[in-house]
This record gives sequence, structure tokens and C-alpha cells, in this order.
Amino acid sequence: MNMMSLKNQPAWRWGARAIIDKSNSLESNPPPHEKFPTVSPRGPTDEAIRAASLSVLSIDMRVTENKNVHHTDTYKGSNLIVRRNTEFTIILKLDRAFNEQQHQVELEFLIGSSPDENKGTYIIVSIGKEKQDSSWKSRVVAMHGNSVMVGITPDAKCIIGRFRIFAVVVSVLGKERTQRNPDTDFYVLFNPWNSEDEVYMDKEEDRQEYVMNEVGTIYNGVHNNITTRSWNFGQFEEGVLDACLTVMDAGNVPLLFRGNATEVVRQASALMNSQGDNGVLVGSWSGDYSSGTAPTAWTGSPEILLKYASEGCVPVCFAQCWVFAGTLNTFVRCLGIPGRVVTNYCSAHDNTGNLKTDIVLDEDGRMDKSRTRDSVWNYHCWNEVFMKRLDLPDQYSGWQVVDCTPQETSDGLFRCGPTSVNAIKEGELSYPFDARFVFAELNSDVIYHKSNKYGKTKIIHVDTSYVGKQLVTKKHDSNDYMDITSSYKYSEASLKERQVMQMAERRGVPSRKYLTLPEAGVEIQIQTNTIKIGDDFRLTMNIKNKSSKACTVIATVTGCVVFYTGITGSDFKLENKKASVQASKTEPVTIDIKAVDYTPHLVEQANLLFVVYGIVEETETPLTTMRVINLQLPELTIKMSGSPRVGSDLLVSVEFTNPYNFPLLKVELRLDGPGLIQTKVKHYSQILPGASVNYTVSIVPRAHGKKVLMACLDCSALRQVTNQLEFEVLKKELVTQGTIRFRS
Amino acid sequence: MNMMSLKNQPAWRWGARAIIDKSNSLESNPPPHEKFPTVSPRGPTDEAIRAASLSVLSIDMRVTENKNVHHTDTYKGSNLIVRRNTEFTIILKLDRAFNEQQHQVELEFLIGSSPDENKGTYIIVSIGKEKQDSSWKSRVVAMHGNSVMVGITPDAKCIIGRFRIFAVVVSVLGKERTQRNPDTDFYVLFNPWNSEDEVYMDKEEDRQEYVMNEVGTIYNGVHNNITTRSWNFGQFEEGVLDACLTVMDAGNVPLLFRGNATEVVRQASALMNSQGDNGVLVGSWSGDYSSGTAPTAWTGSPEILLKYASEGCVPVCFAQCWVFAGTLNTFVRCLGIPGRVVTNYCSAHDNTGNLKTDIVLDEDGRMDKSRTRDSVWNYHCWNEVFMKRLDLPDQYSGWQVVDCTPQETSDGLFRCGPTSVNAIKEGELSYPFDARFVFAELNSDVIYHKSNKYGKTKIIHVDTSYVGKQLVTKKHDSNDYMDITSSYKYSEASLKERQVMQMAERRGVPSRKYLTLPEAGVEIQIQTNTIKIGDDFRLTMNIKNKSSKACTVIATVTGCVVFYTGITGSDFKLENKKASVQASKTEPVTIDIKAVDYTPHLVEQANLLFVVYGIVEETETPLTTMRVINLQLPELTIKMSGSPRVGSDLLVSVEFTNPYNFPLLKVELRLDGPGLIQTKVKHYSQILPGASVNYTVSIVPRAHGKKVLMACLDCSALRQVTNQLEFEVLKKELVTQGTIRFRS
Repeated sequence: MNMMSLKNQPAWRWGARAIIDKSNSLESNPPPHEKFPTVSPRGPTDEAIRAASLSVLSIDMRVTENKNVHHTDTYKGSNLIVRRNTEFTIILKLDRAFNEQQHQVELEFLIGSSPDENKGTYIIVSIGKEKQDSSWKSRVVAMHGNSVMVGITPDAKCIIGRFRIFAVVVSVLGKERTQRNPDTDFYVLFNPWNSEDEVYMDKEEDRQEYVMNEVGTIYNGVHNNITTRSWNFGQFEEGVLDACLTVMDAGNVPLLFRGNATEVVRQASALMNSQGDNGVLVGSWSGDYSSGTAPTAWTGSPEILLKYASEGCVPVCFAQCWVFAGTLNTFVRCLGIPGRVVTNYCSAHDNTGNLKTDIVLDEDGRMDKSRTRDSVWNYHCWNEVFMKRLDLPDQYSGWQVVDCTPQETSDGLFRCGPTSVNAIKEGELSYPFDARFVFAELNSDVIYHKSNKYGKTKIIHVDTSYVGKQLVTKKHDSNDYMDITSSYKYSEASLKERQVMQMAERRGVPSRKYLTLPEAGVEIQIQTNTIKIGDDFRLTMNIKNKSSKACTVIATVTGCVVFYTGITGSDFKLENKKASVQASKTEPVTIDIKAVDYTPHLVEQANLLFVVYGIVEETETPLTTMRVINLQLPELTIKMSGSPRVGSDLLVSVEFTNPYNFPLLKVELRLDGPGLIQTKVKHYSQILPGASVNYTVSIVPRAHGKKVLMACLDCSALRQVTNQLEFEVLKKELVTQGTIRFRS
Repeated sequence: MNMMSLKNQPAWRWGARAIIDKSNSLESNPPPHEKFPTVSPRGPTDEAIRAASLSVLSIDMRVTENKNVHHTDTYKGSNLIVRRNTEFTIILKLDRAFNEQQHQVELEFLIGSSPDENKGTYIIVSIGKEKQDSSWKSRVVAMHGNSVMVGITPDAKCIIGRFRIFAVVVSVLGKERTQRNPDTDFYVLFNPWNSEDEVYMDKEEDRQEYVMNEVGTIYNGVHNNITTRSWNFGQFEEGVLDACLTVMDAGNVPLLFRGNATEVVRQASALMNSQGDNGVLVGSWSGDYSSGTAPTAWTGSPEILLKYASEGCVPVCFAQCWVFAGTLNTFVRCLGIPGRVVTNYCSAHDNTGNLKTDIVLDEDGRMDKSRTRDSVWNYHCWNEVFMKRLDLPDQYSGWQVVDCTPQETSDGLFRCGPTSVNAIKEGELSYPFDARFVFAELNSDVIYHKSNKYGKTKIIHVDTSYVGKQLVTKKHDSNDYMDITSSYKYSEASLKERQVMQMAERRGVPSRKYLTLPEAGVEIQIQTNTIKIGDDFRLTMNIKNKSSKACTVIATVTGCVVFYTGITGSDFKLENKKASVQASKTEPVTIDIKAVDYTPHLVEQANLLFVVYGIVEETETPLTTMRVINLQLPELTIKMSGSPRVGSDLLVSVEFTNPYNFPLLKVELRLDGPGLIQTKVKHYSQILPGASVNYTVSIVPRAHGKKVLMACLDCSALRQVTNQLEFEVLKKELVTQGTIRFRS
């Protein structure tokens, strides 16, 4: 006899925790028949038996009509898609006329494998004689013959995902349920059109851009030479919505959290990268992408999401920041959360969170690569999502930063955000999530240390304006960028900026006090024109003497190649210069750079970094500056013949000529365009020096309106040669034939 | 020719991320000799060569003297242990007298495998002719012959952990370093005695209890029958400090975070449990603990932490909330963070975070176990830690809740907190970490639903005062509890309480509006005396009629066994009662409970749950209530013979008699007491009915002062029979002998 023996209990009830349902793809459903216990000794009345004999023959989800009302008609696929807190109507076909006084029909909406009325995963609404309280609203809209049209309004906070529907006839005898029918499954999404929804956006033009636009422009290059590439978000493409739900299932996001936009976005920022949780994309900056697709080669997200979902949730190789941001943007827009891709130029990657980026120069004024561990990214892409932050005071609603590029772990997973842009601007960094990290990306100081011959370093210069130079995102109805720097930062050196820094320090940012450094009175700026990759060019150092005395400057200029992450590669140039500068004058000093010197060393995205370390001879005060130069890539041409019209053939050709004296090997050419074609990939084993390739495809536009065709050529020796072509697709030509009758 | 070929770069520099050092046990050290490049064409001067020839022979860490000053003399072990921002002194033994004008000596302090001056993992201080800025302060305290006493003050925010020290003689020729010597390794801890440290505590009596006390009392049982058990925190025991650092290494806590008490505690709350990160303890509530030690059988933390650290960081089996909280308390006190164990009686475990605990009664008024998924724990233990929250506005510093029992994932890992007690009290739930979860544990409403025969449920009663009934923690200098409920909650039904609920709703807690329920005008309370396990007893339901009319109440009483987590087991009693109650009177209704009915069903910790569902016949309004009864366990006696004195033998015996008519099998008896003995475990294969066991051990007290000896008997049929014995250990008897001389 054992007093404390185990009892027979359902497994989920054991221990401290009940089961938490984390999958939208698993399901469990109630039985088709449920018999009630006998009601009275006399048995059911004739009337009761008549009421019981009602049958639901079918459910018409009115897919086309409802999708039009719910702004979901652009989604491909045959199932209904609706948005929260807006009514949709379905038609129940019965075997007899419905009688509200006599009959009782319930509609059940289920999600997941453990539906529970108290958890929002099992919703029951009723029509007929007995009303039931429910978070979803229902009403009889119309009755016609044996059909009833029922209006259903999912509540403004309901879980988003794929729901199952059952119609249940309830009588004194029991419940009779319709059969499980996947055709009547429907999706509920966030609703930016509804003011009760946390993702509500006021203006239709904003919703059109941030929810409905299927293509976008991502900005890269460097801050004074902004370049662009188009991106196919393709959130409405066939299978993309299911893929987004699969991502959440694979990431074990509890269904309970899926009605909360803040939670969905936070989880998604971890799930877009593979680190820690086998998320969608494998980040790689290694230069060797032969085991997958190079980050620079992608043209859009659908290819990535569909590959991930269809191949058993194995992370897709490879991504860098714009691929992460582009894919997350698809994810949020697809689920109905307004989102956009933002580029931060000169983005600090601060390993320590101390708001300092330390650059160590060696004895000779060159960057000491073994001691410089921080870096400033030429640009870094993240996302903004728009939502009410129910968990925060009101003023922190609005745009939120989310960054899914794996940089640092936030609370154990590689993710960052959502964090309020307003809070970042005000230095109010206590609120979740990861505000200090984002603040550092924008507001770090660059500290130049110089070591003497004994290896002892001292700070020679602090640049408080290098980082977070400019933030941009795409304008509405244009591929131009909109400068949104002022939504993140007060202007440099303003009183308000200093107050924000003080606030940030009261919120846990380490105080940044430096010894006062001697003012050199002299500045150096580096200047160039646009330079094509493979060209010789001239660099001008403008030495500006702001003092009232002439001075002599001795400067060391180092040139090295650099990744867009600010990580430096090989040096290719080291030159010493000496110049005398009159009081209040600027003296240009030129340095000639030969293509033969830099081309053998170039790394992805073809950036060169020049670091200048100088000394004013008279005062012995040090000077330093750096500048990244982004070389211009060869051209890719897209041509079209024929006039674009839905359903009509159109010929598109992409042309490229290898301008180099060496062959390009294993070249990948991608062609993409939502509403036009599914991503096409063409492989060339080599393109010989001076040779041209021409890739021509025939496409049949599937939708009218403004469309973008984008092309990207990529190989290990030449990355990210892109171009895009925009054009208007006309509506299908109406061929009027005698046999077709039109309504007048 | 490949333009974009990979360059030779150190591996950690590839990609977006630099290496983050996450281990205090791995190390890399600078070379013993570093030669500088030749300085001048003439070579070094004679003077320079003389300066270079200084040698450091040894470093005396002055362990005993420094430990006394730093309140670390109670830690076992031979290495120095100091606290931040307080000076410690070391003596450098040189081969000649030190000359401050001529010589230059640096002291280097290193932690981890990637020491970096900019990251706080490589600190250099200097004495002699050339000063160097450093976060740690240094000064020459005294010189005597060839020795120099140097005072060193680690900064108030420095990383805590085990540091290595090197002395370096710097000359024009280069650097000469002392050899790596593990004997001079020293530990830096948080410093509650120093007002610059974020864990500063004002009062010495608080520091003595929350940092220095090695034993504590944990409260369990039920809120109206609070029981206690002693716990050996043993934070100063040999090996425990190293084990705590090993826990952080195993959990990959970046060294950079280890100077930040908030981060250390947050990481620790995840690392104490094994879920997700192979942390210290495996939580189990299964009832079958045969593959490890039952949660109820432990007497303290050192046994657990030492087992984890010595057996390759394999999670230790098994724990429930008090074991988690006791072990985390050891961890924080050991590192110098003030901490205490708190018990919350009637702690809601809210799966959905909606602040509702749903109890579903079936048609007959019994708890419907398949539909009741939430539970209220009879009690739940968590920790409080005391610190300044540098990341939050000032008013949220002070005591913080940390809960390492795996209940829900917080941001991907099972952890909770730290969250400010002040913020919880005010309903200011936006700030990190996990405030809403803790708020729910304290403030959830219990909602009673009743289903009709068709399975349709409706709410019949809302109890807003059942949850978070009382919070207690140990008093100073006493085993009695201190009621700290008012530090978490304003009084029930006060204006301030309503305002806090409104604030909580503005911070993301779902609004809790219920339909107004009819007032029954009648209350039921369940009353009992103390009941010994195995006794028959009588339960009294007091039916209180608050109305001015007589009424009749029909009630169903269900009795079932229940785990301390509120998860219910088998029913053993179902009784219907009917009673007439006069206006404004209370009518007692008794129910007799037989031991034979409940004993076969009992589960751990011997709790019974009674649920009453009633109906007032005249008005048809429902009534409901529940109560948990904790049965009293048999006694364990501890006796001592001899007078306790350091270094003298002392006999201790623990006695137990099996009061049952069945044998107790595989019984484990633990004896523990910091400063007295290391944990001893005695196994009995069985104790026959009526048989007694007597376990006698001889112990030799190692330290004087108040000591606690604790015993715990545990087997699967009888859990957690504990007792403790407190006594004063006298100082070692001084045997005065003629040969020993005393200072006057």
C-alpha cells in the first residue's frame, strides 16, 4: 500500500504546467454527434424531435464577396481570408427553412490541437432561440428559402491564423455537427483598417504602401552615395501566408500570443534568423556562399519563405541584413501588420553596449585590426512596424524598430525589438524591448585610440556625429527615399539632443565622459567623385585650417577594402603626405589610386575604406578621419517588347556584358516580379571577358496596375548587379463577341 | 583571378559579430617577455638598462588581512576574495628597492580568454614613473626594503568573477611579466557595503541577514496553516563560489554582463532550471522521483550546486519551487547580491496572462478536471533580490522579484524577473522584466464556471480575494515569518487598489469586466482544526445567512486530493447536504471524513481540497467556495548530547517512528548544517510499521556562533518530514600552556 501513488490523470495536467498549444497546423475536433443525457422520464416531445431533425447541408464562405470587403482579394488561394473586427457573411444551406424561435444552431470556430473556450482557441456563436455570450459577434443577416446568411465579426483581439468552422444543430437530443471540411477553413488577419485593432493605421495611402505594396526599394551603398535595389515582398503570392504560419509553428509560438501584434513581431524577429531556433534564414558574411544562395543574389522574400516552408523548415542559406529585413517585412505585411524597411547609414555595432565604438590605430596611424573589435556598418537595414503598444504608455505607440539580423542575443535569442521609435528619440530606454541596443546603433561615439611603440593606447579623437548619419525609407508612390532621421534623433549638438543623452544615462546607458582633448583647429575631409569599379581614380584630402596661423600637417593615408559591416580586409595603400596650409584656408592634397592596387583585394559590395591619421606639426595635436567609398558596379539592362496587358504575352530580355579582362564564373541571374512571374533563376557557367549574355523570357502578366520587374546578377567575383523596370500593366482586353451578354 | 576572394583574417573578425567572451574558466594570457622595437640608433642608455633589470620575485595577496576587510572571511578556500570599490592591498617582493622616479611597474588583472582593455576584461594599473588612466585605482601604500605594498580598488561596476594577476616591469627594452600563478588568482564580488555599488544595502542588520546568513526558513503549507522548513544556503561552503561561476560559464553568460546585477540575476533565473538551457535543477512534479532525489528530500543548496559543477553541468534531479528558490538564494548571496526567499500563498498560475483563473464545475457541482486548466498553487516560493535598477527610473530600485521555477517562458527561456516590487504594487507593468506575470500570480481573480447538462458554461461566482492571500519571508534573528503582503498590494477593496487595477489595465493587462452576478446574501465557510495525517476528522461548513429572510441551502461538497500546485487528484468524498438558516444566523453543517477514504489517494505534501457548490433554494442563486487543508505529518526528533564547542566532539541523534500500519520503503534521511557538517544522507531500505530508527552521528563544529542542524526524512509514501535544532557553538577552549605567549 503506497499512500502517495500516482493517479490516472491526463498527461497535460501533471506538474506545474498545463499544455500550451503552439501549432496552427495540428488539430483536434469535436465529435460529429454528441448525445445529451435523457431529459425527462417522458422522453422528448414531438416538437423537440422536429426541432432536432434540422440539418446543415453545407456552408458557403462567400470567399470572393468577403475578400473584397476585407482588403484581402489580392491574396492568392481559394480559402477565405478576413480581418479582425469586421463582419464577414456566410450562408448556411439547410434542409428546411430556419425558424429562429424553434431552432438552435451554433457556429464553432477552432484553432489548434487543444481548443479551449477560455483561451480564445474555441469560439462558439449561436443563432436561434438560445443566445450565448461570445467574444465574436454573430447575427442573422437574411433568410431566403432554406438558406440563412449569418454575419460574423471576430473580436478585435482575436488570435490570427487559420480557423476551422463547424455548424452544430443543438436540440434536446444532442448536438449534430457538420463534417470537417478544409475548403471552409478561413484565415483571420490583423486589421489596419479597423480603429479597434492595435495595428490600425489612419490613412489609406499609408495602408496602401505599408500593408498592400508588394514591392519595395531597399537602400544600401554609403551615406553620401545612396544606392538602391528593388525587393519583391510578394506577401500575397500563393503559399506565402501559409508559410508565415508555418514559421510561427516551427518556432513554437503559442497560439495564445498570436493575437498580440507586439508578441508576434518580437517572436518573428527571432524566427527570421536561424541562430538558436532554426528560423528562416542563415546569416553569413563569410564570402563563401557556394553551399547556398549568396545574400546578394536574392530578389525577394517569397522564394525564401516558400523554400523554408516546403522543405521541412530547414533554414535557408544565406542572408545579410537586407535579406532579413525584406523577409520580415513580407511576414508582417502578410499577417496584416504595417511594416517598412529602414536603412541606417553608419550603424554602430556595439559589442559592449557602452555606446562607444573603439577604433585603434597603430604606431604608424594605420587601423590596428587585431585591437579594433567594434565596427560601424556602412549601412544596416532593419524594420519598422506600426502598432499600438498596449503594454506601454500611450506615447510609445506608433512605429517600432524590429531588427532580425543576428547581431546580439536579446534575452537568449538573436532578436531585437520591437522598440518604440518615440522612446529612442527621447532617450527613454527602460521600456521593452532592446531600446538600449537600438539607441547605440544610432548614437554611439567613435573613439579613435592611438598606440605608442610600447603598445600603450590613448584617445586622440572622439567623433560624436559619425554614427547614425541618416535614416531613410521608401516614399509612397516613388522609389525615392524619405529621410526619417528626425523621427529618431534631435539635431546634432542641439540642447534637446544633450537632454536626451542625459535621459539615456539615467536609463542605464553608461555615462560617456572623455578627457577634454586639445582642439586641433584643423579638419581633414576626404572627397571623391563617383568611381566605377576597375577605374583608376584620384582621392582629394581637403585640409581646412580654421585657425589664424599657418600650419603644417603630416598625414598618413591608409586604404583598405571593407565589408559593409565595417569589418576591414586587406590594406592596398599606404601613403604619407605633408602640406602647409595658410590661416583660414583649405589646401587640397591629392592621392592617386590605381585599379591594379585595389581590384585584387575587393570584397563583396566593393567598398574601400580610407583612414587618415595626421598631426599638426606646430602644435603636435593629432587629427583623424575616415571615409568609405562605394564603387559603382557594371550595368544590367532590362528591355521589354510588346505592350503589357493582363493575359497577353510580353517579351522581356536582360542583358549584361562582362567589362573585365577575366571570366565571371558560376553566374546566377534572377528575374522576379510579383503579379508578373514567379522568381526565375538562370545559371551561366561562365561569361568570358568582353562577352555578353542575353536572357529573354516570355511573361504573361496576371494582374493589372503598376508592376516592377527586377533582375539581379551575382557571382563570387561580382556581387549584386541589379536593375529594375517599372511599367503599367493594362486590364485584360475585352473581346466583345456576339454570344456574350453584358449587363447594361 | 577572383576579385572578391577571402582574405586572411582572424576567425572572430569574420561576419557581423566579433567574439563575445562567455567563460571565466578559459584563459589566455600575455607572453612573459615582450620586446619593444629598438628605440634610438644609439641603443638604450646605461640608466635605461639599469631600470630594466628590476625583477618581481613574488606577489603576496594578503589573503587573511584583505578577507577581513572585505567581509569575505567566512568563505572557505585559500584564494583572496574581495568586493568592488573597496581597496585591497598586496605586497610585491622585488629583487631591489623600488624607485618611483626610475621604475615602472604595471599590474595586470585579466579575466576570460579574450582579455580586452576596452571591455573591462583586461585592467592595467601602474605604479612608478608613468601613470596610466584606468578604471581600477592603484597607489603605493608603503615601501619597506625590497617590498612595495600596493593598494588596489576595483571600480564599482567591474565584472565579478575570478581574476588573474600579473606584475610587469616596463622598461625601454620591453616588458617582463611574472609567471602565471593560480595561487594569486582572486575573486571580485558585488559589494553591499559600498554605497557606489548597485547592490548597496544601508543597514548592517539587513546585510547580515540577506548576504551573510547561511541558513534560512522557507514557509510552506497553506495560508491559514503556515508550516516551515529550514534550508542550508551554505553560500560560504568550500567550492560553492566556484560552482556559481561554473553555472554562469555553463549558461554562456557573457563576461561583459557579469558586472551588472540586473543581468546576472536575470540570467540566473533561467540558469537555475534545466529547461531550455541545461541549467542546475530539473523541475518535476510527477510524483516519481526514483531516478534522482525527491524535491522534498533536500536540505540545502550546496549539495545541489556542488553536484552540478562537479559532474560536468548535468542538471540535478529533482526540484520544486522551494528548491529552486533556495538554490537561487545561495547563488545571489554567494556573489554578494542581497537576497531572500518569499512565499506567496494562493499563487495563481495563469496560463494565459489574462488575470483569470478559471475553475469549471460540472453539472453536479464537482470540479470538472478536464475543463479546469488553470490552477492556484497553495503556496509558491520565489526570490527577492535587492539592487538599484540602473535601467529603470529611480523609484523601481529596491527589492526585485525573481522566480526561477519553470512556469512560463519569458522571451524564450523559462525565467521570470527581476521585476520591481514597487512597480508591481503600483500596477506600473511596462518595465522589464515579466511584471505582468508576477502581477497575475498575486492579483488574478478566481472565476467559477458551471456547466449545464448540455455542456454550456456560465460564470456563477468571481472571487477577487482568493489569490495572493499573503506573502511572507523570514524575519531577522528569528525563524518567524514577516508579513510583507503590503509591499506588494494595497489593501483589498481600497480606493488605491482599484486605481492600481486601472493602471495595470493601461499597461496591457486585459480588462476584467464581469456581468453583475446576483448577490446570494449567503456565504459558506469551511472550518477545521489541525488534522494529523491518518486521522478521521470532522469538517464544518458554516452557512451564514446575511439576509433578513430565512433560507434553505442545498450544497454539494466534493473532497479530492491536491498537489501544492493546485493540480487536483482523485476524488474521495461526495456528499449532499441541505440546511435551513434563519435570517442573520449562521448554521454549521458537519461532514465526517474517514481516514480510510482519503489515505489511499494522498499525494505529496498531503493536501486535501474541498469544493462546495450550493444553491439558495428560494432565490436559485448559486454559492461556491473552496478550501485546501494541509494534514500534519508525523514527527522527527533531533537530540544532542554534549556541549557544542568548536573543535570538540558532539553526538547528534535523529529519531523517527513509523506510525502507520504499512512499511515505509527506500527511506532517505538527510542531516545538514553549515559550519557543522557536510550534508549526510542515510538510507533505510524499509521501516516496518511501528518500528523506530535512530541515526546518530558525531560532529565537530568548525565555527562558533548560532548554528542550525536540520534533518529531513523522505520516501515515496511520506514526503518532507523535517525538523531543525538550533544551538550556540562556543569558541574553542583555550588551553593555556606555559609555552604559549599572549600579547598583553
